[in-house]
Amino acid sequence: MKLPEVIIRLPDWARSLMDDAPRIFPDMEERMAFVVELSRQNILHGTGGPFGAAVFDDCGRLITPGVNTVTSSNCSILHAEIMAIALAQQTLGRYDLSGGGKFCFALFASTEPCAMCFGAIPWSGIRVLVCGARSADAEAIGFDEGPKPAGWTEALNQRGIDVKQDVMRDAAAAVLKEYAMTGGRIYNPELLI
Amino acid sequence: MKLPEVIIRLPDWARSLMDDAPRIFPDMEERMAFVVELSRQNILHGTGGPFGAAVFDDCGRLITPGVNTVTSSNCSILHAEIMAIALAQQTLGRYDLSGGGKFCFALFASTEPCAMCFGAIPWSGIRVLVCGARSADAEAIGFDEGPKPAGWTEALNQRGIDVKQDVMRDAAAAVLKEYAMTGGRIYNPELLI
Repeated sequence: MKLPEVIIRLPDWARSLMDDAPRIFPDMEERMAFVVELSRQNILHGTGGPFGAAVFDDCGRLITPGVNTVTSSNCSILHAEIMAIALAQQTLGRYDLSGGGKFCFALFASTEPCAMCFGAIPWSGIRVLVCGARSADAEAIGFDEGPKPAGWTEALNQRGIDVKQDVMRDAAAAVLKEYAMTGGRIYNPELLI
Repeated sequence: MKLPEVIIRLPDWARSLMDDAPRIFPDMEERMAFVVELSRQNILHGTGGPFGAAVFDDCGRLITPGVNTVTSSNCSILHAEIMAIALAQQTLGRYDLSGGGKFCFALFASTEPCAMCFGAIPWSGIRVLVCGARSADAEAIGFDEGPKPAGWTEALNQRGIDVKQDVMRDAAAAVLKEYAMTGGRIYNPELLI
């Protein structure tokens, strides 16, 4: 019997965005602008939901981007944050990005993480989470963020993970609105009840 | 620039287990015995943590197994449940296993899901979660289950997902103990605080 497999990879269009990216993104806003652009390009190319993410080191070097490819990959796991984390770990050759506490990698997300991505962050070795749009902005266009605990930022803080919210929130939320206005698919699973 | 990629696939040893599996697993205990065996084989082959999972349809047909390959794949995302879900979606060609509410797939997990896998379940279209060992059994040998809400079973129930606990708990927990006693790696990320 042939074993099934799923390949986690960026859409082809991401290559030119990576090739054109600066070697260092000097500040937080430039890093967030890059992930918001990922979310916008993902809509334009029809490769998934309006969400982008990326892992950067503390010098602002881009390690790996991620975009939501749930619909194009037929895989509900492939949120932008999950892709960015998995590809960063592959690139760096370890499942704990902190390298036992030696390194400080940041995950930038164009929208605050859903319940799954929130739960994935402590396992990743990510030490800083930087968010653009709020969960409420995603919910406003119909996306479900899942059963995430109300005190999710504190829960990450308690594990030594710093959380910054509202970095370029307006620009990130504008992409969500654009997605909804242009008839983008809100691909929550059917309500089962 | 070459784009990085991560391949989600079962270890080679899983092939013979799948080839030898019955076409139909008639009852819940036989399905759970299969995932507990996956967790045991994963230890024996040194391919990851002591956790197995599988997606079955409501006739008891095995769709796809999953095992934890965090350490062997260098990917903190690759818990057994995530692998079973992603491979099942790939096999069936859709990111919502419920097919819009038409189908009733069950996820069997040798141990209750961590915070990440809990958050992944509502996105998967899984309608039934069946658990062997308790989170407390995994915690007893040093594994961290993450910031999962206290009322996690009710949170799934509210989304129309049925949860069954303690199915062959003793057998599932025995594998966890065996892993700890034989010096298995407890691969939580370093405490960052």
